[in-house]
Amino acid sequence: MTDAAPSDTFLAIDWGTTNRRVYRIASGMVEQTERDDRGILSVPSGEFPAEVAGIRQRMGDLPILCAGMVGSNRGWVEIPYVDCPADLQSLSAGIVWVESGRTAIVPGVATRAGGHADVMRGEEVQLLGAVAAGLVPPSALLCQPGTHCKWATLDDGAITGFATAMTGELFALMQKHSLLASQMTADVRPGADFDRGVNDATDEALLTRLFNVRADFVTGLRADDSGVASYVSGLLIGTDVRAQHVVGRDAYVLADPQLGSLYATAIDAAGGHARLIDSHAAFIGGITSIWNSLL
Amino acid sequence: MTDAAPSDTFLAIDWGTTNRRVYRIASGMVEQTERDDRGILSVPSGEFPAEVAGIRQRMGDLPILCAGMVGSNRGWVEIPYVDCPADLQSLSAGIVWVESGRTAIVPGVATRAGGHADVMRGEEVQLLGAVAAGLVPPSALLCQPGTHCKWATLDDGAITGFATAMTGELFALMQKHSLLASQMTADVRPGADFDRGVNDATDEALLTRLFNVRADFVTGLRADDSGVASYVSGLLIGTDVRAQHVVGRDAYVLADPQLGSLYATAIDAAGGHARLIDSHAAFIGGITSIWNSLL
Repeated sequence: MTDAAPSDTFLAIDWGTTNRRVYRIASGMVEQTERDDRGILSVPSGEFPAEVAGIRQRMGDLPILCAGMVGSNRGWVEIPYVDCPADLQSLSAGIVWVESGRTAIVPGVATRAGGHADVMRGEEVQLLGAVAAGLVPPSALLCQPGTHCKWATLDDGAITGFATAMTGELFALMQKHSLLASQMTADVRPGADFDRGVNDATDEALLTRLFNVRADFVTGLRADDSGVASYVSGLLIGTDVRAQHVVGRDAYVLADPQLGSLYATAIDAAGGHARLIDSHAAFIGGITSIWNSLL
Repeated sequence: MTDAAPSDTFLAIDWGTTNRRVYRIASGMVEQTERDDRGILSVPSGEFPAEVAGIRQRMGDLPILCAGMVGSNRGWVEIPYVDCPADLQSLSAGIVWVESGRTAIVPGVATRAGGHADVMRGEEVQLLGAVAAGLVPPSALLCQPGTHCKWATLDDGAITGFATAMTGELFALMQKHSLLASQMTADVRPGADFDRGVNDATDEALLTRLFNVRADFVTGLRADDSGVASYVSGLLIGTDVRAQHVVGRDAYVLADPQLGSLYATAIDAAGGHARLIDSHAAFIGGITSIWNSLL
């Protein structure tokens, strides 16, 4: 490789709404990484070029490939979605160069199945990257927990369908603003309270089970609020998982270990087989594959 | 009836968390009524006697029978719940005089079925009053929509079981604080958007359908936000109703006409038969029956 040729060394940015993570990748290996809270909402319109200039100063004067909400209408430039079925080739074909030959953004993916639209930006790189990195078979059910939990079906290395559940957002609303807020002060933990919430999700009476928590306190059935957040988390995650029909299926979970293990518990309780996958390795696998296709 | 004998003329107060309604009732007929926002949260501890003194100045120096959250731990005096099965006789037996011979509070009702506690304060007077007033048969399924929607089973004139759904509170959380808040500005109305929400509740994917609304905007599938609040209301009310197994059953709905008709639509869509009942007449029937039992 000469100095003038395209290089397999580049900077990858997983640029979300609230947070941002940058990797310097050479030949598919991470050489350096940094994480901060400079998500797109903290970057004023027009200051994205200055942001990537700062990143290049810190991490090297290299080409940059971005994924995530940076490609939304609140980001740098709005990049059109690629429709399902979407694979690494269609993502590569949909890339937009926002600084010619220097900085590019990967498109998100959209679906319009059954009259309901759904969208993702950033998750598609992890989903397809998990296959590229050999962590997941080419046809599989994958789950990415979070504020907006994604459930994706991959067939032969392409995302053929997906659904987003507002699970994490609803938990945050309950914790901050609901009748139960004052009791939801402890951390969510695996254990008996979480398990009971998952189990109570089976009767599809979510709206009632939430009120029962309050009534348990009022009647003295519950005196201690240390398990309330865990119970509510179990109820919501259990409801989320049971809508996905995981019975008898492997479900590959891309998440940090804590949230991943909560989802794994709920998936196994619903009759599925949870498999925890390293979401960072999946992202690196995906973004490297896309970059290599551009060389 | 002499001046010294107990009178069938009294003041009834339906005293809730936010609002309060007072009736002067003589021989079961409403002679005068007033409604204001002096719910229990706006009455400082210790000022309940002054409140009822003011009411007597305006509406007559009469004995007072109160129902509702005024009997909770944030109210005047905490009145112990009566357990299910609860009928008008057990409510009468559980009354507490907070001003001797002058002012009394009706107890609420609690249940602990299936390991889940549930509670009501105020609704029990309407539920049992609907039967006392001849509006509902002695064995029936009743629904009281609201912030915390009550579903009660009556057998032979007694509340034998009930469940509270956090339907109205969850709608308010979505409208005020969620990702969809900026699109939920229009009023909830019956019609195509509400009906579509009710219909979409059938697949038990509530958490996903909420996110679909956002994705519909992002992808251009939906451009106009006038129907979003109605759709979300339909989703939540539809989810609430379908958890109650109303198929083939009469469901008596005690609510104002607007909210009542939304629930009626969802009940009929779920295969039940909604019957709208006048909730004020039910309250008057219940509180008068309890008062008469004290004479």
